[in-house]
Amino acid sequence: MRQDPQRLSFSIDARDGAARAGVVTTPHGPIETPAFIPLATKGSVRGLDVDEVEALGYQLILGNTYHLFVNPGPERIAAAGDLHGFMNWDRALITDSGGFQVFSLAHGGVADEVKGSGRNGGHGSEVDITEEGARFRSPRDGRELFISPEVSMEVQAALGADIALAFDECTPFHVDRDYTARSTERTHRWLDRCTAWHEEHGPSGQALFGIVQGGTYEDLRRESAEYISAAPVDGIAIGGTLGRDKAEMHDVLAYTAPLLPDEAAKHLLGIGEVDDLLGGIALGLDVFDCAVPTRLARHGVALAPSPETRWRLDLRKGGHVGDRSPLVEGCPCPACTRHDRDYISYLSRAEELTAIRLIVLHNLTYMRELTTHARRAIQAGSFEAYRSAVLAGAAPWAAAAAQAG
Amino acid sequence: MRQDPQRLSFSIDARDGAARAGVVTTPHGPIETPAFIPLATKGSVRGLDVDEVEALGYQLILGNTYHLFVNPGPERIAAAGDLHGFMNWDRALITDSGGFQVFSLAHGGVADEVKGSGRNGGHGSEVDITEEGARFRSPRDGRELFISPEVSMEVQAALGADIALAFDECTPFHVDRDYTARSTERTHRWLDRCTAWHEEHGPSGQALFGIVQGGTYEDLRRESAEYISAAPVDGIAIGGTLGRDKAEMHDVLAYTAPLLPDEAAKHLLGIGEVDDLLGGIALGLDVFDCAVPTRLARHGVALAPSPETRWRLDLRKGGHVGDRSPLVEGCPCPACTRHDRDYISYLSRAEELTAIRLIVLHNLTYMRELTTHARRAIQAGSFEAYRSAVLAGAAPWAAAAAQAG
Repeated sequence: MRQDPQRLSFSIDARDGAARAGVVTTPHGPIETPAFIPLATKGSVRGLDVDEVEALGYQLILGNTYHLFVNPGPERIAAAGDLHGFMNWDRALITDSGGFQVFSLAHGGVADEVKGSGRNGGHGSEVDITEEGARFRSPRDGRELFISPEVSMEVQAALGADIALAFDECTPFHVDRDYTARSTERTHRWLDRCTAWHEEHGPSGQALFGIVQGGTYEDLRRESAEYISAAPVDGIAIGGTLGRDKAEMHDVLAYTAPLLPDEAAKHLLGIGEVDDLLGGIALGLDVFDCAVPTRLARHGVALAPSPETRWRLDLRKGGHVGDRSPLVEGCPCPACTRHDRDYISYLSRAEELTAIRLIVLHNLTYMRELTTHARRAIQAGSFEAYRSAVLAGAAPWAAAAAQAG
Repeated sequence: MRQDPQRLSFSIDARDGAARAGVVTTPHGPIETPAFIPLATKGSVRGLDVDEVEALGYQLILGNTYHLFVNPGPERIAAAGDLHGFMNWDRALITDSGGFQVFSLAHGGVADEVKGSGRNGGHGSEVDITEEGARFRSPRDGRELFISPEVSMEVQAALGADIALAFDECTPFHVDRDYTARSTERTHRWLDRCTAWHEEHGPSGQALFGIVQGGTYEDLRRESAEYISAAPVDGIAIGGTLGRDKAEMHDVLAYTAPLLPDEAAKHLLGIGEVDDLLGGIALGLDVFDCAVPTRLARHGVALAPSPETRWRLDLRKGGHVGDRSPLVEGCPCPACTRHDRDYISYLSRAEELTAIRLIVLHNLTYMRELTTHARRAIQAGSFEAYRSAVLAGAAPWAAAAAQAG
C-alpha cells in the first residue's frame, strides 16, 4: 500500500464489529462508505442523465474500460478531457481494468458463473492470452485489439478515472487449481507492470487499486492478498470467481476479507445483491459495484423487501392488475411516490421506455437507501440488527426506523 | 357547434392575419394555443415521466384509443379512475378515436402516405368495415375486436379525456373519388351516432371534436366542413389524407381551413413537421399532434434549424466526432445545456437508452419553443416575419429575438 492523499485518502469514522463507516476522498469529491456504485458501462447510467444520478445521491460511478476501449475509444474520450468531461460527470469515477470482459470472451461462462448474468456468448471472439496480454477481435467491427497491463493503464489514464483498477485475469470457476495458481501468479506479475506504468505515467490524481485473485483456494487467496497488500496501490479490490453458490462465496469472502490491511479502502467487484452486499459490509468491505439493479429494470424487475424472491418483484408476471400500492411501500423514489404497480407493470409489459426509467430510478434509490442506512447503523453500533431486519424482509428505511424506535 | 363552457371553451386573444393566439380551457386546465401535442400513445410519453412532460411546458397530451383499447383495455384504465388517474397526469388529455389505426390495418399504407411513417404492415390483421363499424383481430393476441362509433365513444368516456374525437374513416390517398365520397358520407353518419351517444352517455366534462374528411377533393371537403360545423361538437379536427406531397397538403388545407367556423378550436391531426405546423398556424389552425418529434429521437434524430434537411439532425450519421457544440446553439433543453454532439451522437449510435431520453427532451423542447414563440409573434403582430425566419433556418428563439431586436 502507498499513502498519497493527492490521489486518494480513506478515513474510517465508525466501526461496528468488522464493519466500518468511512469516507474515500478523491480529486472529484468524497464517497461516503459503505457505498453501492452504479454502472455507467458505456458512458451512461441506463436511461438516466448524469444530473439525475447525482440527485439520487451517488458520489461514484463505474465506467467500463473494455467497452469504452472498443467504442468510442480512448482518443475520443481524451479529446473531451477525460470520461468526466465526455459524460459531463463532475463527481468521482472508477474504471475497471477490462480484464473481466476480455476473459469472459475467453472463458465464456465466467460472467454467468460469478455474477449470475445471462449467457455471455454470441461475440464470436477468440482471445489469445499470453504473458504479454490478451489479443482479441472487436465484437463490434472485427478489428484486432490488444489489452495488456500497460494498455489498460494507458486507457484508464485517458479515461481519467479517480480510481483505476489493475489489469488481472478473472479466473472462472470451471478451471482447475493449477490453472488458478498460474493465473493468479500472472495477475501478480501484471500488477507489477501496472504499478510500474502508473508510477511513471499515471495521472497525478489517479489512485490505483490492486485486485486479489486466487479463486476458491484459501492458500492462493492468502498469497494474493499478501502480494497485493505489499504493492504500491491505493486500495484493494476482491475479484475473480467466488464460488459456485452464495454459501461458497460467503466462505471465500470470510477468509479473504480479514487478510487485507485494515486501512485500505476495499472494493468487492461485481457483487450487489442485497444480502451479499450486507454480508460484504459485515466483513469490512466498503464499496460494491454491480450491474444487477440497472439490468433488472430492463426486464421489469424492481427491488423489493422480499428475501424469498432474492429481493425481486417481477412486474411482468401476473398479479399486479389493479394493484394501487407503490412498488415498495414507503420508498421515496419518483416511481413509488407518483405511480402504482398497476401502471408500472402495464408499462413494463408493454415495453414502454418509461417503465425502464421508472424502475431504474426505483432500484438505484433502493440501493442508495440500503447503504445509507447501513452506514448510519454502523455509526449507531446497530449494524447487525439492521442487517438482520433487512434479511428478514424489512425495507432499508423500515429496518432503520425499527432500531431507532 | 355547441357551446358548453363546462366541457370546453375557446377564447381568441390575438389575431395576425388568419393566425390566432388563444386559450382552450378544459376541466384539467388551460391550453395556450397554438400548441403542439406530444403523444402518450400507450400511456406514456416516450421515456419520460409525466412530471417531466409538464415541466417541459406541455398542457395537453394525446392518448391513443386504439392502442389503449387493445391493451390494457378500458376497464383497467377506468378502474384507476380514468387515463388521468392511470398515468397520474393532472393536465388536459385528448384521445383520438381509434379510427386512424383501425383503417391503417385495413388500407395498409395510409399511415405511410399521410403521415410519413415507416411501413405499417406486419400486423397480419384483416379488418371488416361495415356501416356498423370495424371488426378486426387484436394484433396482440388475435382475439376479435370491434370498434364502432358507440364503442369508440364508450372507450373514450372510460379514458376520461377532456377532448374526445369522433370515430371516422381516415381515407387513404390511393382510393378513388367514389370511395372517398361514400366514406366521407359514412363518417358523417358515424358522427351523428357519436354525438347521439355522447349527448346521452358522455362524461359531463368531456368535449367532442368532429373530424372533417373528404380526401383531396375540394367539394367533398366543403360538404364535410359544413356537415361537421352544423353538428353538436365542441371543436373541429381536420383528418384524412392531405395529398401525396407537401404542396398538395398545403392546397387541401388552404381551401379547407377557411371553411371552418372562426370560433371553433381547430385541430390538425397527425401533422407536426416544423414547416407544416407553421403553415397550419398561418391558416388559423390551433393544435397539432404528431408522433414525429418523439419517434425521431428513437432513431437518433434531433430537431434543428435546418430547412434543407427538414429540420432533422441525424446524430447517427458521421461528422459529429469531437463536435463540442450542443445539438442546437442556444437551445434551453437539458441535452443542449449539459452535453455536446460528440457525446450524444456516441450514445445514440451505441443505442444507449440515455440517448433517446436526451433527444426526446430536446425535440419536445424544440416544439414547445416553436409554438410558444409563434404565439408571442401572433400577439405582437409579427407572425409572418417569425415564420419566414424559421423557414429560412433560424431557431425559434432566434427568430423571435430577431424581430424583437
